[in-house]
Amino acid sequence: MFLFIAGMRTMSDNSLTPPKSIRARSSQRSIIRELLKLASQPDVISFAGGLPSPKSFPVKAIEKATDWVLETQGTRALQYSSTEGEPALRKAIAAHEAELGAPVDPDCIQIVSGSQQALDLMALAYIDEGSKVAVEDPTYLGALSAFKLQRPEFVTLPTDEHGLNPDLIGPEFSGIRFAYVMPTFQNPTGITITEERRKKLAEKAREYDFWILEDNPYGELWYDRQPPKPIRCYAPERTLTMGTFSKVLSPGFRLGYIIGPKPALDPLTTIKQAVDLHTSTFTQLISARCLDEGLMKTHMPDVRALYRTQCHCMLDALERYFPEGTTWTKPDGGMFIWVTLPEYINTDDMMKEALDRKVAYVPSSAFYANEPKFNQMRLSFVTVPPEKIDQGVKVLADLIKEKMAAHNA
Amino acid sequence: MFLFIAGMRTMSDNSLTPPKSIRARSSQRSIIRELLKLASQPDVISFAGGLPSPKSFPVKAIEKATDWVLETQGTRALQYSSTEGEPALRKAIAAHEAELGAPVDPDCIQIVSGSQQALDLMALAYIDEGSKVAVEDPTYLGALSAFKLQRPEFVTLPTDEHGLNPDLIGPEFSGIRFAYVMPTFQNPTGITITEERRKKLAEKAREYDFWILEDNPYGELWYDRQPPKPIRCYAPERTLTMGTFSKVLSPGFRLGYIIGPKPALDPLTTIKQAVDLHTSTFTQLISARCLDEGLMKTHMPDVRALYRTQCHCMLDALERYFPEGTTWTKPDGGMFIWVTLPEYINTDDMMKEALDRKVAYVPSSAFYANEPKFNQMRLSFVTVPPEKIDQGVKVLADLIKEKMAAHNA
Repeated sequence: MFLFIAGMRTMSDNSLTPPKSIRARSSQRSIIRELLKLASQPDVISFAGGLPSPKSFPVKAIEKATDWVLETQGTRALQYSSTEGEPALRKAIAAHEAELGAPVDPDCIQIVSGSQQALDLMALAYIDEGSKVAVEDPTYLGALSAFKLQRPEFVTLPTDEHGLNPDLIGPEFSGIRFAYVMPTFQNPTGITITEERRKKLAEKAREYDFWILEDNPYGELWYDRQPPKPIRCYAPERTLTMGTFSKVLSPGFRLGYIIGPKPALDPLTTIKQAVDLHTSTFTQLISARCLDEGLMKTHMPDVRALYRTQCHCMLDALERYFPEGTTWTKPDGGMFIWVTLPEYINTDDMMKEALDRKVAYVPSSAFYANEPKFNQMRLSFVTVPPEKIDQGVKVLADLIKEKMAAHNA
Repeated sequence: MFLFIAGMRTMSDNSLTPPKSIRARSSQRSIIRELLKLASQPDVISFAGGLPSPKSFPVKAIEKATDWVLETQGTRALQYSSTEGEPALRKAIAAHEAELGAPVDPDCIQIVSGSQQALDLMALAYIDEGSKVAVEDPTYLGALSAFKLQRPEFVTLPTDEHGLNPDLIGPEFSGIRFAYVMPTFQNPTGITITEERRKKLAEKAREYDFWILEDNPYGELWYDRQPPKPIRCYAPERTLTMGTFSKVLSPGFRLGYIIGPKPALDPLTTIKQAVDLHTSTFTQLISARCLDEGLMKTHMPDVRALYRTQCHCMLDALERYFPEGTTWTKPDGGMFIWVTLPEYINTDDMMKEALDRKVAYVPSSAFYANEPKFNQMRLSFVTVPPEKIDQGVKVLADLIKEKMAAHNA
């Protein structure tokens, strides 16, 4: 009898999982992560993921720094640490920011487990169900996934072909929890907003009393000249700025940071205690050593040169192969080019055909919070070597030309 | 005029932080984290934190494994990885679990950023506001902080001097999201529940159709004999088991895992994508190498011997110094002893006096979900060397005797 009841009960909702939360029922796997799986197939030319070129990894320097850390402070590196982060790393980051012309007190830096965690902590600390959060249009899809777990309402910031346009920000933004922006080499468009627009955004934030969450993962990846200063330099009292080591040192470390006024960091620290106690002491101390040893100065010029070459290679290939009626951004840094196709081409639908021809990209629909556009695509030029970039762009161009011919017929 | 308005606005709620979420307004810093800060003062004898003895860290073996990883698969170790975790580590964990008599398919293992993250992911995937979650009484305070972010209602599992007593579980538990239990060397009590109680709990979970979240951070830290098998061996279809490398390899790695049926892991994986993409590839591969090289077999006997000695040292000191009217648990493993004082002594209040005398513990109130008890304390014997254990226990005993004398006077 007991077995019979038990058998019946295993037919209930609880048979496969515990009862799911509303957010678990509504969250879906991110397209980008699923694509990364396809991208890992060796015969696919993937412009989809934002995987840094393995050539950009300073393996030897990291090995040297690791040996130093384990030999000089091994038991500290392997022990629990404080939630705020290792003092050595916070100090090294402060020194680096000062060199970039954006000084900060080490106490105003919170270390996080990759900048994706910064997005999650912001959502936990500053979003309730139905809270208004402003995002660019398009915006980084990983930010949308992190914020969505707390079920906000998204409002979109006005943008034009030069990126975010703060002139059009009006009083409708005064009730938002924060505005999430990526002003430098934006993901997905590659666009950098001007110093003038940064200053204007800071003014508007003051005028309408909202906070800015500035995401700056690509600031170091400039090709010919340093980008304008971060927005936090213009509105330090109401900006939290996220940084990461994933694009300059190693994504495998999962190491990022948030800079901002201490009172605004405090709730993030408290919540981080509850979600993962602290970030790896080991990778923090290794990264601190790499910074102290001047790795950014010796290493970044090579990474910049590598990505500049690959960016130009993709721009050349787009110029060479892509048909009239298509346009694309021309980034001065970062990892991405944003391509716009004729409105009748749906890049979601085209994805399968592209993958059949062994080329991957990310369709534009994933990057819009509310009203998706379907005729764009994000191409990353950092993972694939130059000869493959040319080959992959040609495959996409041929596919698009076929679509255009079919439409015109 | 603009400046005036801006000035006025900085007086609003948004002047110091963005508008806070309900959870941020209600979450407080964990006592244990604040205590860890005090514990780091060199003149304090801290029985408060659960910091493993630095003597237990296999620094040389980790250095060797790191060099091997960077030399043989450096670019992989520094690159992004899959959310599920590195195949090499999942395979190594599966092999280790099989050796312990609890085999598992590597696909049924999700890697997490320390087992604290497992608690957070469980909360995000399986708790809505007001959901019922069952916990032991007392229970691990870090679990309470992680779960509280999603604002559940806690119900307490029946316990007695032998720990969780499943005989007393009735139909009132049939609507819960899951029951969180730590059956082996429990934090905070040090108690291990018998094989019979594990089987009975599995039966009750089936009878009342609930899931079990089994936390097993200390299972490897047995002193004289291996503890009974994990509960997942008795209810594999409805148990998620959390493991960690923090107590056996390095807490500084922030590396843990969840074992369970694939469909119940899937929502955790999806949510992990949004909260931190994945756990450090670097520390995963180093840990996999350590496991493959047999570090658990060569290293754990030393850790067990170290903690056995320190546990007996504390038990001896308690016997020697603590007055009649006080009792304590006698653990067979793990890191903690749970002391019960006369009901009129409040360990929250006594904390300041103990710290004035340079000894720290964790007061019992932190470990209760609903109705706190105030006359108990958790003592950890793993961080402090034997001579200090004796000294610190004597200080506490004197303080307690003073309290008792004052009460009786």
